[in-house]
Amino acid sequence: MVKADLSTVARLLITCPDQKGIIAAVTSFLKDHGANITDLDQHSTDAQGGKFFMRLEFQTPQLDLSSKKLETQFAKEVGTPLKMDWQIHYAANLRRMAVFVSKYDHAFLEVLWRWSRQELPMIIPFIVSNHPDLAQAAKHFNIPYHHIPVTKETKAKAESEILKLCEGKVEGIILARYMQILSEDFIEHFPNKIINIHHSFLPAFIGANPYQQAYDKGVKLIGATAHYVTKDLDMGPIIAQDVARASHRLNAEDLRILGQNIERTVLAKAIKAHLEDRIIVDGNKTIVFDLE
Amino acid sequence: MVKADLSTVARLLITCPDQKGIIAAVTSFLKDHGANITDLDQHSTDAQGGKFFMRLEFQTPQLDLSSKKLETQFAKEVGTPLKMDWQIHYAANLRRMAVFVSKYDHAFLEVLWRWSRQELPMIIPFIVSNHPDLAQAAKHFNIPYHHIPVTKETKAKAESEILKLCEGKVEGIILARYMQILSEDFIEHFPNKIINIHHSFLPAFIGANPYQQAYDKGVKLIGATAHYVTKDLDMGPIIAQDVARASHRLNAEDLRILGQNIERTVLAKAIKAHLEDRIIVDGNKTIVFDLE
Amino acid sequence: MVKADLSTVARLLITCPDQKGIIAAVTSFLKDHGANITDLDQHSTDAQGGKFFMRLEFQTPQLDLSSKKLETQFAKEVGTPLKMDWQIHYAANLRRMAVFVSKYDHAFLEVLWRWSRQELPMIIPFIVSNHPDLAQAAKHFNIPYHHIPVTKETKAKAESEILKLCEGKVEGIILARYMQILSEDFIEHFPNKIINIHHSFLPAFIGANPYQQAYDKGVKLIGATAHYVTKDLDMGPIIAQDVARASHRLNAEDLRILGQNIERTVLAKAIKAHLEDRIIVDGNKTIVFDLE
Amino acid sequence: MVKADLSTVARLLITCPDQKGIIAAVTSFLKDHGANITDLDQHSTDAQGGKFFMRLEFQTPQLDLSSKKLETQFAKEVGTPLKMDWQIHYAANLRRMAVFVSKYDHAFLEVLWRWSRQELPMIIPFIVSNHPDLAQAAKHFNIPYHHIPVTKETKAKAESEILKLCEGKVEGIILARYMQILSEDFIEHFPNKIINIHHSFLPAFIGANPYQQAYDKGVKLIGATAHYVTKDLDMGPIIAQDVARASHRLNAEDLRILGQNIERTVLAKAIKAHLEDRIIVDGNKTIVFDLE
Repeated sequence: MVKADLSTVARLLITCPDQKGIIAAVTSFLKDHGANITDLDQHSTDAQGGKFFMRLEFQTPQLDLSSKKLETQFAKEVGTPLKMDWQIHYAANLRRMAVFVSKYDHAFLEVLWRWSRQELPMIIPFIVSNHPDLAQAAKHFNIPYHHIPVTKETKAKAESEILKLCEGKVEGIILARYMQILSEDFIEHFPNKIINIHHSFLPAFIGANPYQQAYDKGVKLIGATAHYVTKDLDMGPIIAQDVARASHRLNAEDLRILGQNIERTVLAKAIKAHLEDRIIVDGNKTIVFDLE
Repeated sequence: MVKADLSTVARLLITCPDQKGIIAAVTSFLKDHGANITDLDQHSTDAQGGKFFMRLEFQTPQLDLSSKKLETQFAKEVGTPLKMDWQIHYAANLRRMAVFVSKYDHAFLEVLWRWSRQELPMIIPFIVSNHPDLAQAAKHFNIPYHHIPVTKETKAKAESEILKLCEGKVEGIILARYMQILSEDFIEHFPNKIINIHHSFLPAFIGANPYQQAYDKGVKLIGATAHYVTKDLDMGPIIAQDVARASHRLNAEDLRILGQNIERTVLAKAIKAHLEDRIIVDGNKTIVFDLE
Repeated sequence: MVKADLSTVARLLITCPDQKGIIAAVTSFLKDHGANITDLDQHSTDAQGGKFFMRLEFQTPQLDLSSKKLETQFAKEVGTPLKMDWQIHYAANLRRMAVFVSKYDHAFLEVLWRWSRQELPMIIPFIVSNHPDLAQAAKHFNIPYHHIPVTKETKAKAESEILKLCEGKVEGIILARYMQILSEDFIEHFPNKIINIHHSFLPAFIGANPYQQAYDKGVKLIGATAHYVTKDLDMGPIIAQDVARASHRLNAEDLRILGQNIERTVLAKAIKAHLEDRIIVDGNKTIVFDLE
Repeated sequence: MVKADLSTVARLLITCPDQKGIIAAVTSFLKDHGANITDLDQHSTDAQGGKFFMRLEFQTPQLDLSSKKLETQFAKEVGTPLKMDWQIHYAANLRRMAVFVSKYDHAFLEVLWRWSRQELPMIIPFIVSNHPDLAQAAKHFNIPYHHIPVTKETKAKAESEILKLCEGKVEGIILARYMQILSEDFIEHFPNKIINIHHSFLPAFIGANPYQQAYDKGVKLIGATAHYVTKDLDMGPIIAQDVARASHRLNAEDLRILGQNIERTVLAKAIKAHLEDRIIVDGNKTIVFDLE
């Protein structure tokens, strides 16, 4: 990443129909208002009539407008005329992400630990769990822990309780192996803002018990997938994936341990990309302007 | 691999119910007849009542029996009493493998090229193709090329023609992107002896056009799978798999090129393991006693 | 890669001191002259006083100037005022790359094969070798093969003979395991235009016999490095690297085979990046705007 | 791994000159005394006159001798006649490993965390640090923390203090980024029993500040190496290594974060192999009979 003081970094994400002059229009606008662009990554799907995606990082210290006015102006002069979906995010405004977890602690602790050492620039206002087991761990990191049990009968009530907690306080949710299926209604409150970690290389082994499925099938690689949650279970836009070798010497339990360690890495990577505004969702796919 | 003169190497593969004393029985037998074991790899599925698999490489120069007598004796004294499925293969007897191909040449050329530089110890008695396109390439490697077109109507006839070619001349088949589905009847002639390369990370993207499927799904890794062919299309025992990163910057054609290069490597790896007797098939899975 | 007709693609590479407005200046200039930018990748080393690097792909059909005038104008209006090192390359003008080889054919054949199937967009005017061994292979690909032996005594003469061959006909050189050290004088004719493949993960195992070194050292990964050739042997800017696992089961010969297969992939990747104008050399390092 | 009750698992490691009949001798001995072999991995360096290495896992419940007598007998009947270096280790006897750390907590916490969830079967009798910073973390895991500062002047005294702590209580040491160089004298107390994690792909970037070295050199992969500590700094037998891609987009600080996450994985893997008796040291190299 460009060496820069994060307090002065802003990021602009753009999706629009491709046409000539988009980059010139955007960068001239920014230049005219004193922004120094330090990173620009762009992607077009097609040379003719394709879709245009861009991520742009700029430095704000010499802006000649307030951020609010800058945005109003940008909408009027550039965004609306060019039919853009766009958003600006300021790195100084850390995103508020709730973490949901059940009993498995591997993904959960990885997230908290990387967060505590500033690898994941966010605020965690609270943790939600349908089990009490990880309350102590949460306490260690000084994060409020809400134990909200969920049964078939209480699911709707539990979700509305969680929604109330989130209201106005949360801009996204991390499912660090939260073993409850969120309702379509709940998900609609956070479109492309709920990140889940799935314990397989999707679309292989959708559903329950992917390690056993992988073991039974005798695959030679085992994987994990981080994706945004949509109403289509395990089918939301994929953000990150990784795999590790799995020989016949590994039993189903060995595969579980191996897989969980991949989950930790993949979830952390996806959260980082989300927090650094590196992801644009396009239908059921993602554009990830990543660093590696 | 152990440094050894291949002309004196024999390999013994064993599958049997696990019980105490199997290794002692096998290795004592070999020692008593003058064999020097230079490599032994063993796998049990369970400490109690599991299945036992073993691959054993031994040197033959000081054997006190002919190979035929050794095998008769082994069956009588060890194999049958311990209920073993077993086979001995002598590295000097290069396997005769036919190569089947259609039009894509990437996997095909990789196999021929590695074969020509002695990376794949086998004899290729001939090539079969349903298209004439690769005849010239076959000629370059001095391998007979049989062009046997296949249509819906002629399929049965074509297969019987191919079977006749193979009869007594071929111990296994490499499908280097042969785009015809072999009949159940044909496959039964070569149980666990037909190696196919599939252009996806199975079980994801079974069936046609996996690159387009992968592109549409937006996966972040693209893969290939080598497997033995069974009557269950794309579902036979997996031998080897690998993947490569695939960002949004790759279009479906880029994915195809990337994927084809993975296919080359994975198919070569699977063939090598097959030829070096490193694979035991157990139901729908493989035990691969590999080097890496 | 963006789906586009290569005959209309131009690429602009820029290095300059970072300052506000560079991207706006460049993209406005291009827009004003009818260029449609379809890919832009940019990198700054520092938010303050850093260096600025950019790769830009644009479509030429609606340019309002000849390419020559476009370049003159660009120099005057943008390049010189902003102190840029820059170059424009047109994808339709395939680069003319000579291939140098000694006796090992693995990297050599990989390059020729990928070239023959259009994975590497270049012209290969001829092959140079200090041995006659690969003449037949060259013939198969219809490429002239110049056998120019090199001894300690004849080295200077041989190099001048090679230089004469190259004069005006060659824009770059691929060393596909050419086992002669090129003189500083020779290299100066092709600054950052000679690509070498080294059979180790540099800077580990510089010099001769890296496989034996790796074996002796017992490393658990074996690698290969493609780099530009400079007068500092094995120390030029690194373009691409990769590794594979290497267990104790692999002897030095196994490592050699494994390593050679990595060399093939890594060299091909580096050449592709070079041909697609994805590389900017900055001192002893490279910026590689790659696809993956 | 074979599914088995760890309390009944014993492991035998053997190094000896290769000759016929070794495996038969060992396995017959074990069988005769009621041991059930559930895993055997063997390696010979050469078919003629090489070295022989073997790892053997067996189940103890039906042994007809005490473990002490078994070992005496084995030495007499097999080990000594065949000139073996050998050792038997019982999985139930968890190894006592001290953890040394300075200020960086990433490798340290990874070890403690995997230990706490039973991925690393060992006892950690105490932690030693030359800094007080991580005392709180140690407390969280209920492990005694000895803060023993080290200066140039006090080094000898500090080491002897540490040695006293270890005496009779510790069978091995994990250096989880302990930034002090241990004296030759200290190391001799724990031959091939001190595991260190080095923050580079050794032998590249030996010494201080490898991330900066890697950044300056512009390598495309960044790695980590776990090795046994010998008196030759950073040159002891390598146990495990891994790498990750490193593009030009990563600054030296990004490389540090990336590298530290690789260190976590590689150190954990090396410790696991050590604890499961999967490693035989042969001169300056290791034989690692691993699972993957």
